[in-house]
Amino acid sequence: MSENEKTHRVVIVGSGFGGLFAAKALKSADVDVTMISRTTHHLFQPLLYQVATGILSEGEIAPSTREVLKRQKNVRVTLGDVTGVDLEARTVTSQALGSSTVTPYDSLIVAAGAQTSYFGHEEWAPRAPGLKSIDDALEVRARIFGAFEMAEIETDPEIRSEWLTFVVVGAGPTGVEMAGQIAEAARNTLRDNFRSIDPAEARILLLDAADAVLGSFGDRLSAKATTVLRKLGVEVELGAKVTGVDLTGVDIVGADGESRRIGARTKIWAAGVRASRLGRHLSEQVGLEVDRAGRVPVQDDLTLPGHPEVFVVGDMATLKGYPGVSQFAMQGARYAAKTITTRLAGKPAPAAFSYWDKGSMATVSRFNAVASIGNRRFAGFIAWLLWLGVHLVYLIGFKNRITTLINWAVTFVGNDRSERVISHHQVVGRVVVSRQGMTPLGMPPTDPDE
Amino acid sequence: MSENEKTHRVVIVGSGFGGLFAAKALKSADVDVTMISRTTHHLFQPLLYQVATGILSEGEIAPSTREVLKRQKNVRVTLGDVTGVDLEARTVTSQALGSSTVTPYDSLIVAAGAQTSYFGHEEWAPRAPGLKSIDDALEVRARIFGAFEMAEIETDPEIRSEWLTFVVVGAGPTGVEMAGQIAEAARNTLRDNFRSIDPAEARILLLDAADAVLGSFGDRLSAKATTVLRKLGVEVELGAKVTGVDLTGVDIVGADGESRRIGARTKIWAAGVRASRLGRHLSEQVGLEVDRAGRVPVQDDLTLPGHPEVFVVGDMATLKGYPGVSQFAMQGARYAAKTITTRLAGKPAPAAFSYWDKGSMATVSRFNAVASIGNRRFAGFIAWLLWLGVHLVYLIGFKNRITTLINWAVTFVGNDRSERVISHHQVVGRVVVSRQGMTPLGMPPTDPDE
Repeated sequence: MSENEKTHRVVIVGSGFGGLFAAKALKSADVDVTMISRTTHHLFQPLLYQVATGILSEGEIAPSTREVLKRQKNVRVTLGDVTGVDLEARTVTSQALGSSTVTPYDSLIVAAGAQTSYFGHEEWAPRAPGLKSIDDALEVRARIFGAFEMAEIETDPEIRSEWLTFVVVGAGPTGVEMAGQIAEAARNTLRDNFRSIDPAEARILLLDAADAVLGSFGDRLSAKATTVLRKLGVEVELGAKVTGVDLTGVDIVGADGESRRIGARTKIWAAGVRASRLGRHLSEQVGLEVDRAGRVPVQDDLTLPGHPEVFVVGDMATLKGYPGVSQFAMQGARYAAKTITTRLAGKPAPAAFSYWDKGSMATVSRFNAVASIGNRRFAGFIAWLLWLGVHLVYLIGFKNRITTLINWAVTFVGNDRSERVISHHQVVGRVVVSRQGMTPLGMPPTDPDE
Repeated sequence: MSENEKTHRVVIVGSGFGGLFAAKALKSADVDVTMISRTTHHLFQPLLYQVATGILSEGEIAPSTREVLKRQKNVRVTLGDVTGVDLEARTVTSQALGSSTVTPYDSLIVAAGAQTSYFGHEEWAPRAPGLKSIDDALEVRARIFGAFEMAEIETDPEIRSEWLTFVVVGAGPTGVEMAGQIAEAARNTLRDNFRSIDPAEARILLLDAADAVLGSFGDRLSAKATTVLRKLGVEVELGAKVTGVDLTGVDIVGADGESRRIGARTKIWAAGVRASRLGRHLSEQVGLEVDRAGRVPVQDDLTLPGHPEVFVVGDMATLKGYPGVSQFAMQGARYAAKTITTRLAGKPAPAAFSYWDKGSMATVSRFNAVASIGNRRFAGFIAWLLWLGVHLVYLIGFKNRITTLINWAVTFVGNDRSERVISHHQVVGRVVVSRQGMTPLGMPPTDPDE
């Protein structure tokens, strides 16, 4: 390459599975990569529920992105919230602490992911946090362990029972894993921790509007998971539609069509996701309409129509009904990187993207998981061992694998959970909300009475 | 004991070294213990700087207090911020999320500790956080690693240099440890992490109004520590008085009497502590005056005059010039517990409390510490091994010792730091403050320009 020739500039938006694997796939390419992300870490989202339930520390599942990529000299990692993409000018605008940056690109890979969706009821968000970020996980952790603390000192039996009731909305993998882990924490970890309450009496409800737990895993695994959850004492309620979420409980319409109220101070929302608002922003510029979940209907090479230089991968994209899982993001990212390097080499473009389903798995309780791999279905201890192996392999960093394994031994064998810290941010800023109404974050309420 | 005879009620305020060791010392006593604490964890404060600099997770140094005490059936642990003690009625009033609890006692052990003191300049607190709680540590961690992130994207060389300048005020053990660790992080951990800046060029300043680093360790160790810090590239400035702290720097009057300004976006305050406000509250009721640091001048049996049933231990108490270290809190707590059980047994009271100085130590850099034990002084690698052993022994929990050892190996041998997560709470809620002025926690500033 002559010195005058400019190196091809690739901008990657996002540091999740899509963003990170796109950068890694460009390792040997003669390109300049700039990654722009709102967070400084790469989040291993499949284990987020373990941070939310006190098993793992945030560092174990969220290594610094720039540390992960430090040896890859053609990547520059930058902090920024992308506020706009100009498809004509080929620039990305991002903000960090009020300072604005414009980054030009020759190729763009957008992998900004998805966030929790409340289906038009965004006002439920502070009352029933989702589980998509480290902040969510720390918040949920503080609410769960904080609820038992409040129950211990509460003298009104009705309020105490509200503190000891946990509602998880959504019976996909995250909801199942959360319900299972709250139950394990209540029955095992917290045993002997309290003097006024018996944490094992906590009620854990898992609600879903659909008629099956883990519907995408098929009837047999769905039934197995339901049985294990019920054995753990989780009340599984299917065909139940949530119609209201407030400080002290949720309103539902049950499968029988009857309206009911469940008193519960702790609610966790695992019912839906919505693609990053960048999806709509990009779609509007090319005359596309996003789907109900805000995802971009990409071409079969994952690009925007008329913009072969712009790829949308992962949770932000929709194509042929492929599922919004990490494998879809990783494979899409590798495909985009491959397409860019193929073009630079002047070779014919690769065939259309196609998703290879490597299977899916979810833990239900310790030593018990379900896994669906090709035509094979596994349930119980064997599936749990598969789950353990796969997650250890995909975790980033040798040290994180070791300490995660130690933490798993501590929790699964010893029933302990060593990451139970409730920080003041969480206690004062948000748990207080569930008792006393909305107050600005971090500002204690002025009226101590409810 | 007849069934009519009431069990002696001991209330302990605080779950730090004083509170926890008081509870443990009452293990075999025929008493009912209630521990009231603002936090749900026991904080191992000597390693807080390692959470603040990305080495350890918060769970490793802050285990759940009720988990630590779960097998001790005569202790009930409760969450609450103590708002008042009625010495006549013998009751303690505490608040949690607005719910108020009144707890009666027969004996009271107050060990509510101390917080950061700004010597009358409390307005400096949001600009230069101290290091007394898990929240402080997470906040400082976000500011340190966030400063390098901002420097990487900043194009104005003056602002970039402010982001790359770190001022630590106070050259006691915490200040020395923080300055040393920021230097190690900049020179080693962050190497190869950035493309636009060289983190090794970061300036780290350690300021103190006194004329020595680690003054309490004596001249020889003080000189050794200063030499090691300077080798690490820490600019040690003694006899320097801080006269102002704002968003972009600090104003000082140097040893030469000249006023100067140091541009620095990241400031850490390790210059002073002030006893919990409960100290003044208790003192006023018995006609005592607290000292300049808000500490209660206790009797030589650690009680309040006229109230032999009320003990004040640890950082809240002052007696015969004993230092405010964890050993003073632990020994005071054991003494108070012993006095209570001796009295219950109807035996003569123990002799006046006297503090046994087991020595003190501080790490300066990896493999390098100073230790003062009896008449002996150690510096360098031997002192560092002593430090390592003592801290591992005092850490609570077998699992925490193992994972801490692994994290130390990763950091001290491999230069990595695996706990570098910056949560949104920190980024939006507070780092933003240092650039854009005070905004309510969690509320992004409305004006994106400075």
